[in-house]
Amino acid sequence: MSEYKAPLRDIAFSMNEVCGYSEHYRDLIGGEVAEPDLINTICSEYSRFCGEVLHPLSRNADEEGCKFTDGAVTTPTGFKDAYAHYVEGGWPSLSCDPEHGGQGLPSSLGLLLGEITCAANMSFALYTGGLSGAIETLAAFGSPEQREAYEAKLIKGAWNATMCLTEPHCGTDLGMLKTKSLPQADGSFAITGTKIFITGGEHDLTENIIHLVLARLPDAPSGSKGISLFIVPKLDPQPDGELRANGVSCGSIEHKMGIKGSATCVMHFDGSRGIMLGQPNRGLATMFKFINASRVRAAFQGVAHADLGFQKSLAYARERLQMRAASGPANPEGPADPIIVHPDVRRMLMTQKVLSEGSRAMLHCLAKQLDISELASSAQAREAAERRLDLLTPIAKGFATEIGFECANHALQCFGGHGYIREWGVEQNVRDARIATLYEGTTGIQALDLIGRKVLADGGSALEEYCKEIEAFCVDEQDSPHAGELAPLAREWKSLAQSIGATALEDPDEVGAASVQFLMYSGYVCLAYQWAQAAIAASAALKAGTNEADFYSAKLVSARFYFQHILPRTRSCVVAIDAGAESMMALPEDHFVF
Amino acid sequence: MSEYKAPLRDIAFSMNEVCGYSEHYRDLIGGEVAEPDLINTICSEYSRFCGEVLHPLSRNADEEGCKFTDGAVTTPTGFKDAYAHYVEGGWPSLSCDPEHGGQGLPSSLGLLLGEITCAANMSFALYTGGLSGAIETLAAFGSPEQREAYEAKLIKGAWNATMCLTEPHCGTDLGMLKTKSLPQADGSFAITGTKIFITGGEHDLTENIIHLVLARLPDAPSGSKGISLFIVPKLDPQPDGELRANGVSCGSIEHKMGIKGSATCVMHFDGSRGIMLGQPNRGLATMFKFINASRVRAAFQGVAHADLGFQKSLAYARERLQMRAASGPANPEGPADPIIVHPDVRRMLMTQKVLSEGSRAMLHCLAKQLDISELASSAQAREAAERRLDLLTPIAKGFATEIGFECANHALQCFGGHGYIREWGVEQNVRDARIATLYEGTTGIQALDLIGRKVLADGGSALEEYCKEIEAFCVDEQDSPHAGELAPLAREWKSLAQSIGATALEDPDEVGAASVQFLMYSGYVCLAYQWAQAAIAASAALKAGTNEADFYSAKLVSARFYFQHILPRTRSCVVAIDAGAESMMALPEDHFVF
Repeated sequence: MSEYKAPLRDIAFSMNEVCGYSEHYRDLIGGEVAEPDLINTICSEYSRFCGEVLHPLSRNADEEGCKFTDGAVTTPTGFKDAYAHYVEGGWPSLSCDPEHGGQGLPSSLGLLLGEITCAANMSFALYTGGLSGAIETLAAFGSPEQREAYEAKLIKGAWNATMCLTEPHCGTDLGMLKTKSLPQADGSFAITGTKIFITGGEHDLTENIIHLVLARLPDAPSGSKGISLFIVPKLDPQPDGELRANGVSCGSIEHKMGIKGSATCVMHFDGSRGIMLGQPNRGLATMFKFINASRVRAAFQGVAHADLGFQKSLAYARERLQMRAASGPANPEGPADPIIVHPDVRRMLMTQKVLSEGSRAMLHCLAKQLDISELASSAQAREAAERRLDLLTPIAKGFATEIGFECANHALQCFGGHGYIREWGVEQNVRDARIATLYEGTTGIQALDLIGRKVLADGGSALEEYCKEIEAFCVDEQDSPHAGELAPLAREWKSLAQSIGATALEDPDEVGAASVQFLMYSGYVCLAYQWAQAAIAASAALKAGTNEADFYSAKLVSARFYFQHILPRTRSCVVAIDAGAESMMALPEDHFVF
Repeated sequence: MSEYKAPLRDIAFSMNEVCGYSEHYRDLIGGEVAEPDLINTICSEYSRFCGEVLHPLSRNADEEGCKFTDGAVTTPTGFKDAYAHYVEGGWPSLSCDPEHGGQGLPSSLGLLLGEITCAANMSFALYTGGLSGAIETLAAFGSPEQREAYEAKLIKGAWNATMCLTEPHCGTDLGMLKTKSLPQADGSFAITGTKIFITGGEHDLTENIIHLVLARLPDAPSGSKGISLFIVPKLDPQPDGELRANGVSCGSIEHKMGIKGSATCVMHFDGSRGIMLGQPNRGLATMFKFINASRVRAAFQGVAHADLGFQKSLAYARERLQMRAASGPANPEGPADPIIVHPDVRRMLMTQKVLSEGSRAMLHCLAKQLDISELASSAQAREAAERRLDLLTPIAKGFATEIGFECANHALQCFGGHGYIREWGVEQNVRDARIATLYEGTTGIQALDLIGRKVLADGGSALEEYCKEIEAFCVDEQDSPHAGELAPLAREWKSLAQSIGATALEDPDEVGAASVQFLMYSGYVCLAYQWAQAAIAASAALKAGTNEADFYSAKLVSARFYFQHILPRTRSCVVAIDAGAESMMALPEDHFVF
């Protein structure tokens, strides 16, 4: 089975040479702890852990899956030990509050490392992702008592956590949820209802699991404005330290296409004791902290799937001998040439390379904004970062998970028929990657969030700001390799948004009709901006003299490939957006088949 | 579990109202048997069989898979009975030679029905596809004795068949194959070697399996010109009718991403007795009869996957209630609207609809050419059809299987998170569909075949002929809805081929670099031609007056959607083709990762 090596050189390039992370960390409140040597050590130690401990468990986890017996979930062989190592290594506490046992490093670091966890072992990663989300939500909205009661245990990794939103009849449309919460005399609530698709709802990795559950109060308004959020522990900690059963049970686990080592649970709450987190009827807003963070984490998963497939298919393409190069034998001693000589295999490898590296850089920039929104000293900087984060999160989640699945499929395709065989692990990567465009809001939901809430709702001003930045960059760097190609895109992007807004005044369906094409268009432009910056950084390094000339030259070639072969996809998006909603909406519902 | 209903109305539209099958059959030698009523009866009877017998076995076959014990393969529950029904129904003999027990219907009919088999139960379909291919190859190249010995048993379905090409070290590059054939005193050959990826290499459906095996003679030239084809039965029929073990054994079956009910076998031949089919050292050319037919069959699989997903996601989108329509509640009595009201769900449904229906029509036209190449009375007509078939086969196989996978994924996406759960069957369709772009020559191989052998090698004349036909159509039908948009594409298509040819003179890698984009471009233009024709047929029917106005109006909307929302994808292809090979080929092999 093939190895996985965290792309440390590329991560360092993107952090330090494109996104300026050293200065960035220095400028944050408390950021001085994140000094470059420490960051390097953390990245390489964590990569070693993921490569040596997590990745070797991944194939078997897919074959073995989780087991469900009498309400108990057994995770795949090795997960329990690996989780114990993960906890011993202090990895859950990295970006957490030092007052509750955290290491106080900026949020971005946990996100960046999340790529590595997911590439190494996507199923395992899902037990760690929920944990981070719950810690962040508690830290942001928990009362001092609530934080005291739960946060330290979670930060230590001794307990795990979930978020419980979806019900059988509602996923996207949470306003329809039915789980009830009854106020109790002691100020707690009795929670009753059934939730589905709960990642890590039950498992054998930790002694307790803290569920964050959306439910309705008896007098709550209907719809999404009548939802509250509750902390509902599987085992309710008593004042004497006893963990008491709390009416929380797992009814079954789902049989899924992939991420089979991750337990996706049906959870029943039967008068379970919960305490309210945040304000009554404001649960969705509170949960959105968690949801937004989950979306950024899912975006990193897309990069992980793209990179994992890239690594596996690159190794295969170098070894597999089949046919001769069109330009004459490249391996004349051998019976045939390695397939990496063939242009179409190159096309698939280069596509994976530029989409994964470009998306990684995009997400590194996004993660910086998250840090700034949390830890900048000026309120103005925090607000600007928040605005940018809001704009870019749906693009990041929607685009990166779509290209993650695309790249996973290119990787499989490089293997030919062998890619379809389970033992190579590339088809597993395709199946694991497939979930990412669905959960945490489908691509369609991200696209509506982008064009509706993040662009049109503020009159396009956040987008305009970003485009202005890109245009200014193109002016400043007008002699750089790709600034000339990028500038018109920044103008086109704004004008597309305007024209969608204008048609929407006449027909509200125009927004939805254009939405996914607009999201993908936006993603391609964001990556073009990243590749233009990467090319400048690489040119500068080459000009200054470097002993890594091959690395930097490869960046220049990659940027060129991106602009020549991938960015043209925007042309189709534009034409399809301009076509509008008419033919999309014209068929009556019962005229689709006859 | 959802049902599958063969799209009989659309098949009839495409056959009779777009492709003119009635006249087509009437014009073939012996085509008078294929009279319209009989064809209708066959289609509906076969659809009933597939819907009632095959489809209900499909989900379980995926869960259960094939079992391998001590060299024996057990197919999933129900397959043996279903196969017996298939044989009793006379379905294997449909398009076969009446002199050997066949029903003498044109080849196209078997192909068209193949879509239905695949949609109903892809794994089962693979046991029938190999059978047809072997029968066709025997009929075309077998000596009278060989046909006498094997054909009737195969046509009856009493025996099954495989083709054995791939070996562990070679799939695409068959010139490297090592399986040996030693001439014996009685004129037979002793075949020794190992073959992999043999579909239906061993199973419990029939008493015997006839393998068509590629192997080398002792004095054969190296490479692809030293390969011969042999008939190697699992059990060798003796003059007294005894079936004698023949040194053919199954070493293992593959664990695959999908088509789990189809046994993909490692086959060992240990001095197995074979007889040569066709000429020595001409085995590849002989096998190409089989391979080309398999490619057309695989193209129909693409349509099947697209249609199956479309049916399932359409049913779901009509029932699943989530959110309100942007233009106001469509289901005010209910808690939410069915998701089919949302534009992005529409986009995915319409995309599936126009790609599956358009590809179906393209393949129906292709299948006509196959009939003509076999059964036209004039040699000139046969040759012209052969030329057209050669040109369109790689487009059909490459394009239809790619869109089959794309559409299967749109279907899954329509289900949101539920699509990832196995019980719905849409993720199975994605996994089953994934094989089709890999086997029978990957998309990359189809693309090279198209641009290299089928376009550039004949100086572009076959393509030019086809484009002329399209241009003439556009002139004749200039007042029709889409002729004006189609005409420039026919010109652009030719000129793209010319410009690839011109750059290839300077750099042979330019051909491969452009190949897949050129193939996909070609597919989109072919479908535009089909939709332009469909729109004309629909307009004519509406003008003439019909009680199926809804059906025909839906065709007009679909054509519009295709031209407005799908055809723009050609814009990206053109820019990427023009960009050429430079940045694709520039990286040295060891500069892809650092």
